[in-house]
Amino acid sequence: MVLSTRVRMARNLDKWTFTHWSKKEVLKELGEKIKEVVLGTKLLGDGLLINMDDLSEMERMMLAERRLISQKMVRLFQNRSLIVSKDEGLGVMINEEDHLRLYATDAGLSVKKVFSKVNSLDDQLDKKLNYAFSERFGYLTACPTNVGTGLRVSTLVHLPGLVLNNDIRQVIDGMRHVRLSVRGTYGEGSEVIGNFFQISNSITLGLSEVETVENMEMHIRKVLEFEKKARNRLMKEAHTLLEDKVYRSFGVLKNARIINSKEAMKLISDVRMGVGLKILSDIKLSNLNEMLTRLQPIHLQNFSGKAMTPEERDIARADLIRSVLS
Amino acid sequence: MVLSTRVRMARNLDKWTFTHWSKKEVLKELGEKIKEVVLGTKLLGDGLLINMDDLSEMERMMLAERRLISQKMVRLFQNRSLIVSKDEGLGVMINEEDHLRLYATDAGLSVKKVFSKVNSLDDQLDKKLNYAFSERFGYLTACPTNVGTGLRVSTLVHLPGLVLNNDIRQVIDGMRHVRLSVRGTYGEGSEVIGNFFQISNSITLGLSEVETVENMEMHIRKVLEFEKKARNRLMKEAHTLLEDKVYRSFGVLKNARIINSKEAMKLISDVRMGVGLKILSDIKLSNLNEMLTRLQPIHLQNFSGKAMTPEERDIARADLIRSVLS
Repeated sequence: MVLSTRVRMARNLDKWTFTHWSKKEVLKELGEKIKEVVLGTKLLGDGLLINMDDLSEMERMMLAERRLISQKMVRLFQNRSLIVSKDEGLGVMINEEDHLRLYATDAGLSVKKVFSKVNSLDDQLDKKLNYAFSERFGYLTACPTNVGTGLRVSTLVHLPGLVLNNDIRQVIDGMRHVRLSVRGTYGEGSEVIGNFFQISNSITLGLSEVETVENMEMHIRKVLEFEKKARNRLMKEAHTLLEDKVYRSFGVLKNARIINSKEAMKLISDVRMGVGLKILSDIKLSNLNEMLTRLQPIHLQNFSGKAMTPEERDIARADLIRSVLS
Repeated sequence: MVLSTRVRMARNLDKWTFTHWSKKEVLKELGEKIKEVVLGTKLLGDGLLINMDDLSEMERMMLAERRLISQKMVRLFQNRSLIVSKDEGLGVMINEEDHLRLYATDAGLSVKKVFSKVNSLDDQLDKKLNYAFSERFGYLTACPTNVGTGLRVSTLVHLPGLVLNNDIRQVIDGMRHVRLSVRGTYGEGSEVIGNFFQISNSITLGLSEVETVENMEMHIRKVLEFEKKARNRLMKEAHTLLEDKVYRSFGVLKNARIINSKEAMKLISDVRMGVGLKILSDIKLSNLNEMLTRLQPIHLQNFSGKAMTPEERDIARADLIRSVLS
């Protein structure tokens, strides 16, 4: 039910102006300094350094679709860099909104493990870099919403049971009540499609990092319990209806020749639920999750080896899905 | 594109009152007389005699779904009988609307062949039975719309290309102009579902039997040419869209767990078109045609071996379709 967990920390260096205030030369000097330190750590010593100035827009969009850089970094790329581990599970964006954005990701619900990875990197960097830190506020960040821990824990969860059961509204209200924010798959302002929800902490002040992590894990586990109950109830009370829904979506995914991304996500959502409920076997959840990444426009273009119109993309998307499912 | 051709003749005996005016005893006497003569012919000598009084309503409905008797005969069954060949291709309803209703059916477009089968039977019966015939009007029948030849030629045709192309309206108007009647699959007043049209001659006066048959065959061939052109044009101009439509319907049919009869017919229509256009292979048209018969309520009930609610039928229908397609 949890596709991935992601933890990121926003950090800035003392005495240096924030990125959006800095002149080119300053960004350049600061970038070089940070890169050297990051590549000097044990954790990212063998990481891949990618300077955004060396990439085409398409290549930057590709990195954004893989969530290795932000959408903001696709547009504002000069003197920006990424250092990322080979397994893509640990990385640092340099000169993004903050001087450093450390992040770690992993499949499934593993908030503590993912936090400890990024926390270890933070500890190593802390020894070499002079972080902007206030005894009163904590870490200082370019945007006030990050001040304090600078910590954002997000999980991408799949809640079709609660949506079908019409309990999702109540669950979302509950999460907002405990200061979690709930969004669509593609972050802030994005629409919820295919019952995929991104849940993250919305406050960074007044709580320690460890408290944030533990809180998050506890609340997500509660939501997952609700989802499980909803699915069990549906299996009991509407088994054939559920089966019908899952199999129809599977049949369309396996056969369509033209499919837009919204419909694809909805159908994949049904199939994922079917795998979770053991209605469908022989399909790996990891394949479906990977498919969600590969279906994005630039990945798709890459799969087809050429630039495409939206109509051509709908055809390529259907081709890709069939090739993954067969 | 043509699922079946059916020719029927309405005949009555001179000096006997029409069926709906006759008392029980008269119907009984007349019935016995006709049965003996029909079973004495070469063509139906080894035919199966079924007296409606011996059947349950369910059994009569089953015969109606196989088009061996009319819906009217399901309700008005006393002293009515059917004599039908073992291959179900030639039959006589006795004491239906008319004293005799002779019919022959065959798959595909074979108007002359089907007509000659029923015509031979008619010739044999004519020698033994004194038909009610007027030099001025022709054969006299219970309903004035059949007076004359008493001949009705119907073909069940599948015209998805003309529907998709939006030319169907014009073609139907054209057929009505030449005095053909166009209806849904289940005869008079029935809705057109899945692009299956029943086309038949609407006049029985002023034309000989042979003219009726030749006219019909000629007009149907014209319609089939239009349908072929429509399909070719679609294949050229909207190939992927057509493929997408066919494969999606195929995927749903192969996977649904609940399906009502209207949706089933629509999806089967798309799949039939896909087979015709060679988009789909490995599916026999004859299987799809047989499926259309087997999907009817009583056949379905028979397949499942028990009486069913409409909800249960929708599940049994999906089961049957999957079993045929796999």
